[in-house]
Amino acid sequence: MASLDAQLHEYYSRRDALIHEDRSLRRENALVATEDERRADAVLRKIRVQEAETTWNDEGVAKRNMFPGMAFLTARSTIESTRIFKLLQKMPKGGLLHAHLDAVVNKAMLLKYAYECPEIHMSVGQALTVDNVKTITPVFKPIPVSPFTGNAGLSAAQGYRNNSWVPLVSARETFDPALGGPEGFDRWLLDSQMINPTEAYLTHNSVKRIWQKFLSTFPVTGGLFLYRPIYRKYIRQALLESIDDGVSYIEARINFLTKFMHGDDGQENIPHSRWVADFEEVVEQVKNEMRSQGREDEFFGAKIIYTTVKVITPEELEWYIEDAISLKKAFPNMIVGFDLVGDENELRPLIEYVPKLLEFNERVRKEGLDLPLILHAGETLSDGGAPDNNMYDAILLGSKRIGHGYSIVKHPSLMRICRERGIAMEVCPISNEILRLTSSIPAHPLPAVINQGVPVCLNSDDPAVFGSMGLTYDYFQVFVSSEVSGVLTLAQLARDSLTFSTLPEDAKQRALQAWEHRWSAYVKEIGDMYEKL
Amino acid sequence: MASLDAQLHEYYSRRDALIHEDRSLRRENALVATEDERRADAVLRKIRVQEAETTWNDEGVAKRNMFPGMAFLTARSTIESTRIFKLLQKMPKGGLLHAHLDAVVNKAMLLKYAYECPEIHMSVGQALTVDNVKTITPVFKPIPVSPFTGNAGLSAAQGYRNNSWVPLVSARETFDPALGGPEGFDRWLLDSQMINPTEAYLTHNSVKRIWQKFLSTFPVTGGLFLYRPIYRKYIRQALLESIDDGVSYIEARINFLTKFMHGDDGQENIPHSRWVADFEEVVEQVKNEMRSQGREDEFFGAKIIYTTVKVITPEELEWYIEDAISLKKAFPNMIVGFDLVGDENELRPLIEYVPKLLEFNERVRKEGLDLPLILHAGETLSDGGAPDNNMYDAILLGSKRIGHGYSIVKHPSLMRICRERGIAMEVCPISNEILRLTSSIPAHPLPAVINQGVPVCLNSDDPAVFGSMGLTYDYFQVFVSSEVSGVLTLAQLARDSLTFSTLPEDAKQRALQAWEHRWSAYVKEIGDMYEKL
Repeated sequence: MASLDAQLHEYYSRRDALIHEDRSLRRENALVATEDERRADAVLRKIRVQEAETTWNDEGVAKRNMFPGMAFLTARSTIESTRIFKLLQKMPKGGLLHAHLDAVVNKAMLLKYAYECPEIHMSVGQALTVDNVKTITPVFKPIPVSPFTGNAGLSAAQGYRNNSWVPLVSARETFDPALGGPEGFDRWLLDSQMINPTEAYLTHNSVKRIWQKFLSTFPVTGGLFLYRPIYRKYIRQALLESIDDGVSYIEARINFLTKFMHGDDGQENIPHSRWVADFEEVVEQVKNEMRSQGREDEFFGAKIIYTTVKVITPEELEWYIEDAISLKKAFPNMIVGFDLVGDENELRPLIEYVPKLLEFNERVRKEGLDLPLILHAGETLSDGGAPDNNMYDAILLGSKRIGHGYSIVKHPSLMRICRERGIAMEVCPISNEILRLTSSIPAHPLPAVINQGVPVCLNSDDPAVFGSMGLTYDYFQVFVSSEVSGVLTLAQLARDSLTFSTLPEDAKQRALQAWEHRWSAYVKEIGDMYEKL
Repeated sequence: MASLDAQLHEYYSRRDALIHEDRSLRRENALVATEDERRADAVLRKIRVQEAETTWNDEGVAKRNMFPGMAFLTARSTIESTRIFKLLQKMPKGGLLHAHLDAVVNKAMLLKYAYECPEIHMSVGQALTVDNVKTITPVFKPIPVSPFTGNAGLSAAQGYRNNSWVPLVSARETFDPALGGPEGFDRWLLDSQMINPTEAYLTHNSVKRIWQKFLSTFPVTGGLFLYRPIYRKYIRQALLESIDDGVSYIEARINFLTKFMHGDDGQENIPHSRWVADFEEVVEQVKNEMRSQGREDEFFGAKIIYTTVKVITPEELEWYIEDAISLKKAFPNMIVGFDLVGDENELRPLIEYVPKLLEFNERVRKEGLDLPLILHAGETLSDGGAPDNNMYDAILLGSKRIGHGYSIVKHPSLMRICRERGIAMEVCPISNEILRLTSSIPAHPLPAVINQGVPVCLNSDDPAVFGSMGLTYDYFQVFVSSEVSGVLTLAQLARDSLTFSTLPEDAKQRALQAWEHRWSAYVKEIGDMYEKL
């Protein structure tokens, strides 16, 4: 038995060494936890286990198929009830580096802004009935002189003429009681801009179908978002909500495909330069307000990643490249990246744009501009098809980070390159799940990618469409889905969202220092719960 | 422009080199395709694209949410209708290295055998009604002298006494018409031994729940399977069906947890040595039959991986170790591995058995036996929890292959070790999907693992529970889910199922040569379709 004891002792040593080596590429493992971090880690792990066994126990009909990291749209209210969620809400999260501006403010708030604008009109292609209402998407636009003369009712029973424009507020007030009256109207407008659980997990339960629903929400929102008075309120709300969620810096993707938005006068004549100027003004206002409240450490500003959509031809891309470069020159501190977006499974692969993007890189270099490509790539289940191969082009084109990079787990060389060169993946867990790349977060490739030492930051992508406003939901889903992840993992994800931002070095250091300061207070507060557990 | 041309030329060269490097660990990329393989590859790729666009196009209500590699239970009949499936049926597949013997023959055939045995009786814990029938699982056993005296009806309306034993054949004949009569009886018995789409994708749609359903099927089958007359027919059928599906060698896992099966006389007194002897006899019969038909190249035999279940304590494991070793000594050519099975998320982790398994290895070494551990591990979504950590123990204990290894993708060091030492993953794609580790095959980690150069063979696991008899379904799902995979990938998967088998070197070489011969004919036949496409 002495021999077995010795053998066992050796076995456990080898086991520890193997686990240590296997996790040695994880970025947080280069750090040593502080005493507060160790205590906070113990607290969070203990609560995580408790809640896995109680809140998420998958017992009885009421809890059918529940587990930590399960499908978000079914789990949201349960998530919000947990202690882990409440603790993560308070966490300082660093940067939000992947979010589409037109999908970050919750849609109820957007509707509220719209209801305050008497000039917003709406129309539908077909008069509403009980049978068709769920399939009809409304169209909005500001009309300075209302063409409206008659009955605002949108239903067939109310005599609505297809495609006629009705003031939004009147349409709401007179919404057919058979369709639910004003409350039914609100629900219908929200549904047309969000994905519900039945769609994600039943009727549209494939990547292709759910993207059809997903994309259908953007034109609806666009009719409101691209109206300057709403746009300015919207940006302000986006910033305040993010700050409230613990985000201290933002790189928002703005879709510049549409060349003009509607101005205060209702005319569609506001050029991109004004979009950027407005954005900058609102950011400065909020920064000043934060400063005046002594909270300057909670907000280090917001920048813009210029995006257009891969529906355009490579020739059409030239216009957007010129546009982005001229905006960069006019707003050198605001435009920090260039990207091409859209459903990679359906739209042009990056390789078709390579000649233009090489020219773009050359122009930017020659003109001495700091305007990197920050490209979407690999947001796909494809293995070796065009959308997966976008990963190669994003890397070869020198993308500073990768939007999503969901498929990088399949690419040993690309993981090595990203690890060595510090190319971070902008991972969007809830977005990936709702858009059906994964059925739940435990099945997400994130842990595999983290264990390869690839830098990662967590992002919300289009939280207003998913109902996941802020970053807390994404942090929650990731944290409860892994027993490797602890408080140092949370810290590393947040830290890397600043480290791999486009912030200039001095501003980055200030933002990181402020984050470290808040982090210390955060882990102390959680660690102090240790004795009471 | 000359400069851009040059730049582009260089870009495309770098791109090709990067893709080449990224895939350089793939095992099939060490080979050069023959002319026939190149033509067959073109044929299969072309049909795959065509069928992706037609059969699997996810358009209209009838094809809702359909895509290649989608959930198997919904897709099965569509899969069977494709040309790819029909071509893959004819493919020589090499070895089947991961299948549980009691779940490989289709359940309708098993019932047919049972209906031929008048001594098989059955009982239910509660008299059947329309409301409870779907939740009641039957129990079978052979009873030599029937205690049956009265009415065979199992329903409450027919006056069935709970837990009383009724002859199976009479129970079928008199099955309550309100419950569907004899046909309803067949359906009920099949349902109690198989997973249906509603269970997998709706009511039991979590790893935990679907395992409850999955496990419930085994005792039902067990009452028939562990009756020697049925057991012998069953083995024969398993071998013939496998040969028919292109499998030329089998390492079947037999669950030896139960110490005796029922003999021809109905007594529960047939020891494990007889199980093995019967298995060997049937294998030899089938080999002889194949030889007499001039088909000896289609079947190189079947061996047994001794398994018990992780419900036992480490102390109880000692008995099974002794049992396995004595069987190995009695049947040195039949017992080729030792394994511990069961739901890793719920049962004891390997580390609890480590002292006993180290002793096992030591015994085997000292006695000069060729009896490797071939352990289940990592069949889980856990990240760093006990079931995931089973991967470390399986490797450290020297497991010759890994059963499933689903979570290996998270472990850079383990992937390197398996690549370097030639430890193959016994991947079971359809099993993993139905047991909810992945929602579809495109989301399976298999491509990531293949790209890391980890050896892989494809397996059916429990095809009779999933309705996926043979290996063709698993090959199909893998082949249509990846655009990297071509005919050389298929070849490598099949070849590795022989290379990483436990066959002695000379027998392995014979089996491989026979496979190469059949493979050449196969790719020639498919290649010859090239001109007609």
